Amino acid sequence: MMLHLPPTQYFFMASHSPRFLSLTRRAFSSSSSSSLGGVSMVQGASRGIGLEFVKQLLENDDKERVIATCRNPSASTGLIHLKDKFADRLRILPLDLTVESSIEASALSIKETYGRLNLLINASGILSIPEIMHPETTLNKVEKSSLMLAYEVNAVGPILVIKHMWPLLKAGGGNGTGRSTAVVASLSARVASIGDNRLGGWHSYRSSKAALNQLSKTVSLEFARKKDPITCILLHPGTVDTDLSKPFQRNIAPDKIFSKEFSVQKLLSIINNVKSHDNGKFFAWDGQEIPW
Amino acid sequence: MMLHLPPTQYFFMASHSPRFLSLTRRAFSSSSSSSLGGVSMVQGASRGIGLEFVKQLLENDDKERVIATCRNPSASTGLIHLKDKFADRLRILPLDLTVESSIEASALSIKETYGRLNLLINASGILSIPEIMHPETTLNKVEKSSLMLAYEVNAVGPILVIKHMWPLLKAGGGNGTGRSTAVVASLSARVASIGDNRLGGWHSYRSSKAALNQLSKTVSLEFARKKDPITCILLHPGTVDTDLSKPFQRNIAPDKIFSKEFSVQKLLSIINNVKSHDNGKFFAWDGQEIPW
Repeated sequence: MMLHLPPTQYFFMASHSPRFLSLTRRAFSSSSSSSLGGVSMVQGASRGIGLEFVKQLLENDDKERVIATCRNPSASTGLIHLKDKFADRLRILPLDLTVESSIEASALSIKETYGRLNLLINASGILSIPEIMHPETTLNKVEKSSLMLAYEVNAVGPILVIKHMWPLLKAGGGNGTGRSTAVVASLSARVASIGDNRLGGWHSYRSSKAALNQLSKTVSLEFARKKDPITCILLHPGTVDTDLSKPFQRNIAPDKIFSKEFSVQKLLSIINNVKSHDNGKFFAWDGQEIPW
Repeated sequence: MMLHLPPTQYFFMASHSPRFLSLTRRAFSSSSSSSLGGVSMVQGASRGIGLEFVKQLLENDDKERVIATCRNPSASTGLIHLKDKFADRLRILPLDLTVESSIEASALSIKETYGRLNLLINASGILSIPEIMHPETTLNKVEKSSLMLAYEVNAVGPILVIKHMWPLLKAGGGNGTGRSTAVVASLSARVASIGDNRLGGWHSYRSSKAALNQLSKTVSLEFARKKDPITCILLHPGTVDTDLSKPFQRNIAPDKIFSKEFSVQKLLSIINNVKSHDNGKFFAWDGQEIPW
């Protein structure tokens, strides 16, 4: 079983050794041609929505290449299974959002191998960590450590990924895809909306995703001003049956909890039909815009 | 000159020694009576808008008591001058937003002396620090350290102050003032608005103040649900002639740059006329609501 192969099997995919890079450069020597399909990166791909994005991207187009990143690739049984099935079309890189050098290393590796990116999906996010961080039910439970951790992972990490992938997205644009531009899609959440906040609570998560929304809007304006062929959007996936939402599903009607498959199908439809005038916007899974 | 008195003169105001507390308890033994005027705290009071709030609060009502906090009271010539003029009506406490224990110590000291708060103004904020942090003009200049510092000072600090002052604000409500509730007013900025963001840039400042906006909205909902006599608002002071805005005034028409006196007059008028239905809102200096 793939699961029991030693971790080095998967870490090899992340190797930045000159020998590896020169092999892959040759393998994809004409990768900038549009006939070769798109190159997509899914950041936060070990499980949940991120993993499902990787799966559907690979299944939907047999020319698509996907770079899946997560902190600890060898611990992701989901990615290991996909690697078994999709072989060279899937590349797995270790990337820790809290360590900028690991983001830079991924960018360098993608540059050397593919020279471009057509799609970047920031799928990571933290809401709760047993014993460390729990969504706040009252101001009295707001702690500096939870706020700072949420900001680091949910806002700072994604913007640093966009920063380092920016040249690759500029190089990629819509080339090799049915889209007119490259797309940066960052997973936000309806609870990030300040205007739509009617319940309160979840201070760390809400405010970190509001910060992400502002960062995404801010970079979208620079992309537009510089006429970069990149469209930058925010997505609300709905309440999806994942490890992240599991502890909070009790009070939600079962028909309001989506499967990963359904949510990602909807989100990919938004991504694939995105137009330049969508740059900077925040969409729910059904394509409706969400107020800030 | 007050300026040359040894710093201990000012640090004495912040002493939490039992002897000091028992003296002040006696001095203000009937401080909960409404005839004694309001008790206001201005956090970030060493200079600029915060210092001007302290001055106008003390000047406008000769029963008003003001607690002015800042990191290093002995370095604030402005506060030292005011202390000289207003004596016991002004209390200066050292409070470092990045050190939660200093916030707790201030809350304890205010509790022991006054037993209540009627107004909390979060006036602190960072935009630039020479050699350390400069407002970003492009995504390429976005650094993790600047983002995290902005979040710590502009979002986390103010929310922790609200957390620890909450019981005092509940105890105070509008008692002793012309207002119907206690007021928490946090200084945000129009550039925090995601919907109104048309220029981009200033990633750290914009997103930290967007996070503050979401935090303020979130706590306002809890205050309302619990029927606490507290109204929580966000304020945009305009572009005010302070050290914060100085490096960025070049491109602004001189008549669009307000004096501290004018801006704080306008903001105090909003604060003094606030109604419970304003809870959770974001106002510009002229009383207009700003979109999120």
